[in-house]
Amino acid sequence: MKPLLDELAKLIGPAHVLTEGDLSAYENDWRKRTQGRALAVLRPGSTEEVSQVVAACARWRVLHPDSPLSLVPQGGNTGLVVGSTPDTSGRQIVLSLQRMNRVRHIDSANLTITVDAGCILQTVQEHARAAGYLFALSLAAEGSCTIGGNLAANAGGTQVLRFGNARELCLGLEVVNAQGDIWPGLSGLRKDNTGYDLRHLYIGSEGTLGIITAATLKLYPLPAAQLTAWAAVPSMAAAVELLGLGQRYLGANLTGFEVMGQFALGLVGQHFGQLRLPFAESPYCVLLENSDQESEAHARHQLESLLEAAMENGCVSDAVVAESLTQAAALWQIRESIPLAQAEEGLNIKHDISVPISAIPAFVAATDALLTQTIAGVRLVTFGHLGDGNLHYNVQAPLGVDAAEFLRAQEPLVNRLVFDSVVQFGGSISAEHGIGSLKVDHLVHYKSPVALQAMRAIKQALDPHNLLNPGRVLRVDVDHAGT
Amino acid sequence: MKPLLDELAKLIGPAHVLTEGDLSAYENDWRKRTQGRALAVLRPGSTEEVSQVVAACARWRVLHPDSPLSLVPQGGNTGLVVGSTPDTSGRQIVLSLQRMNRVRHIDSANLTITVDAGCILQTVQEHARAAGYLFALSLAAEGSCTIGGNLAANAGGTQVLRFGNARELCLGLEVVNAQGDIWPGLSGLRKDNTGYDLRHLYIGSEGTLGIITAATLKLYPLPAAQLTAWAAVPSMAAAVELLGLGQRYLGANLTGFEVMGQFALGLVGQHFGQLRLPFAESPYCVLLENSDQESEAHARHQLESLLEAAMENGCVSDAVVAESLTQAAALWQIRESIPLAQAEEGLNIKHDISVPISAIPAFVAATDALLTQTIAGVRLVTFGHLGDGNLHYNVQAPLGVDAAEFLRAQEPLVNRLVFDSVVQFGGSISAEHGIGSLKVDHLVHYKSPVALQAMRAIKQALDPHNLLNPGRVLRVDVDHAGT
Repeated sequence: MKPLLDELAKLIGPAHVLTEGDLSAYENDWRKRTQGRALAVLRPGSTEEVSQVVAACARWRVLHPDSPLSLVPQGGNTGLVVGSTPDTSGRQIVLSLQRMNRVRHIDSANLTITVDAGCILQTVQEHARAAGYLFALSLAAEGSCTIGGNLAANAGGTQVLRFGNARELCLGLEVVNAQGDIWPGLSGLRKDNTGYDLRHLYIGSEGTLGIITAATLKLYPLPAAQLTAWAAVPSMAAAVELLGLGQRYLGANLTGFEVMGQFALGLVGQHFGQLRLPFAESPYCVLLENSDQESEAHARHQLESLLEAAMENGCVSDAVVAESLTQAAALWQIRESIPLAQAEEGLNIKHDISVPISAIPAFVAATDALLTQTIAGVRLVTFGHLGDGNLHYNVQAPLGVDAAEFLRAQEPLVNRLVFDSVVQFGGSISAEHGIGSLKVDHLVHYKSPVALQAMRAIKQALDPHNLLNPGRVLRVDVDHAGT
Repeated sequence: MKPLLDELAKLIGPAHVLTEGDLSAYENDWRKRTQGRALAVLRPGSTEEVSQVVAACARWRVLHPDSPLSLVPQGGNTGLVVGSTPDTSGRQIVLSLQRMNRVRHIDSANLTITVDAGCILQTVQEHARAAGYLFALSLAAEGSCTIGGNLAANAGGTQVLRFGNARELCLGLEVVNAQGDIWPGLSGLRKDNTGYDLRHLYIGSEGTLGIITAATLKLYPLPAAQLTAWAAVPSMAAAVELLGLGQRYLGANLTGFEVMGQFALGLVGQHFGQLRLPFAESPYCVLLENSDQESEAHARHQLESLLEAAMENGCVSDAVVAESLTQAAALWQIRESIPLAQAEEGLNIKHDISVPISAIPAFVAATDALLTQTIAGVRLVTFGHLGDGNLHYNVQAPLGVDAAEFLRAQEPLVNRLVFDSVVQFGGSISAEHGIGSLKVDHLVHYKSPVALQAMRAIKQALDPHNLLNPGRVLRVDVDHAGT
């Protein structure tokens, strides 16, 4: 590989081809589940350099058809499914986009912002806000994740209800394909029916079909006011009822709708005693966010009208509207503390699933019953983006049982029970985190064979040498006839 | 072909295999530009029958590798780019989805409706409305076009500004692929990150990759009130300014924003004298629609606030808000009469283009100047969905020049000038109508070669025998190695 590494060093500069020292930030995954070993870490500084690097590696593969060399594109390396780190073979090259972090421009009249793939999500949000606009993707890792990674994984987050996933916020892409050619698809167009939608094919493909190097993204005018409420609801069915009322009363102004189960909130109370939890005795609580273009007074009036109607209807037993930004932030902090409280409580089995919203109450009832019957004392941490039908349905060891031992012994069974139930209710085993290498085998088991066959055909058509992020999303045989 | 037709008659019943009589409704395109000749017209009654028909034709192609047999999927046959009618060879089979017109079900809590592909768009709208919901796709042909065709073409229309194209309204698809297998992708999920997004690949592929047999579509709560306004604006730049103000004041409630040039409105006045045209002397007029979840009073107050601010700002010179549904309908009728008035005035060269909204004023100024310099007296009919950056930029013969002769002589030149200008301003040569067979050669000229190569690779991977709608969107060589 020495000649290839020398060539790459010439292309992007030896300082940006890392082969020595501590590379763990590139090699280990975010949740520290795996430790990989990279042949090298490349840090190209421009789309042209990415193009040249990929072309050089593609040529190498043609000249060395049996070489296992491949590229692992990487943004902020904050993914949750081990999709952006190298395996342990020492034959994978990490291609980090972090140096490409320029905001290219904001087009106010078109409501778009064009950025390099390596821009940190929070940087994009801040640039938009400084110009008077909202970039409506928001998620826990926003201080470190990059927009390229967000798009490669089709990230979700807390504002999907109104603005959609990362996919729906993207109008155009610049992509380096598996041959090293640049697709100049940085469109700022809202309508473009000129052939197959390559943008949507690259988005969510987790770096297996091409490397996103830049994107043109949708902006929205900043709301005049944003109000947060916290409601106690007697059941998951009542939470779904409240969602329907909220959509009817608030329309597109309903920008957040998070549900949290009593046990999940109890963990927060236990491990973060300083947080004040409203209605902690309620079976479920809901956090609502109302964003208004008009005024705070109007936003408050609308939110209070909704909550009054909901209390009359019976789907809300009690509610509070935040009186200040500080109070609103405190309510969001409770929601965001659930994963941290879980970690304090010990290792647990995480799921990121979705079912149709109408099926959520029955899904939770059936799956709760199944798990508690199968594993005595198992504790269920249920919370998530109810407005999107997306639950983080996590499973904690019974009280007093060693968490690590529980995971080792029960994870396969728990996953099977939960995923079987998800599929039975017409749902998805990965709502927002993706497949990576963590869920490749699950996908083969649960996805339609017709869909899998189409995916394999597309992968082989666009990346015949399996150069880009092999083994992620799906496994394919390399087409040696093409080499 | 006789044995194949006999087999097909056995599969779906001889009454649904049409080979005789007047088949012109299936063979001629909507705008009567072409007259095709079908080997047969098939009218399957279920997804299973579509699957069996495609499988039988695919087998025939394998046994007869040199046979030019192919399938042309067809919905309401209202497309504008000759994408759903057979060529003149007499070797293409039309596969009409019209008998598959069942609304399968509405899921209120999930805000979705699931329908057969052959459902008329208006039927879907009416079912949704009867249940208290809005299905937010609306376009001129809604009384005859089918939802399958809308999705295959990624239809646009008048509400894209708020709700997106057909693509954005679709959560899941059922598709019969080129091998005759059924992909059961009828998801009602808002989040599903389990591999490549096949839905978005089939949507907009114009029946060249698979046959859409059913879809699960998004619904929204019906607005409490919908108000329409008509504003005179001094220039296209002022119209763009008004759009920005409208987005800031009304947010997602701004559901319509149509611009119309003075000459386009003049044609309406001339040919439909009974219509009252407000502000006919203004260089441009804008039609705005404000949809409100709260009340008519609130909607009116918001719209009036916007128009006051716009008049103060100077981007609106005069405005009127419709006082009744009848008045609102009359304003929309003016907008919808423009294509009819154009037809009355004589044949013309139509374009369906988009550029970034910020570039619209400069695009119109530059292209107007170019055309009037090149063809003395040429008349420009400019109108369209400004909120989406989508103009129907049509070119009418100079006064006194024979329109048919003008088209024959000037269409290639006019298309070249307009499309060159569109591309120079970062736009698309087909914003909402698609490519069909009408724009295949234009696409090869104007689309990125890297994108075209990816499209060809995908087509060959998913339909190696080129069985589905060959020659539409793109031309490919049949992979005889695969036969």
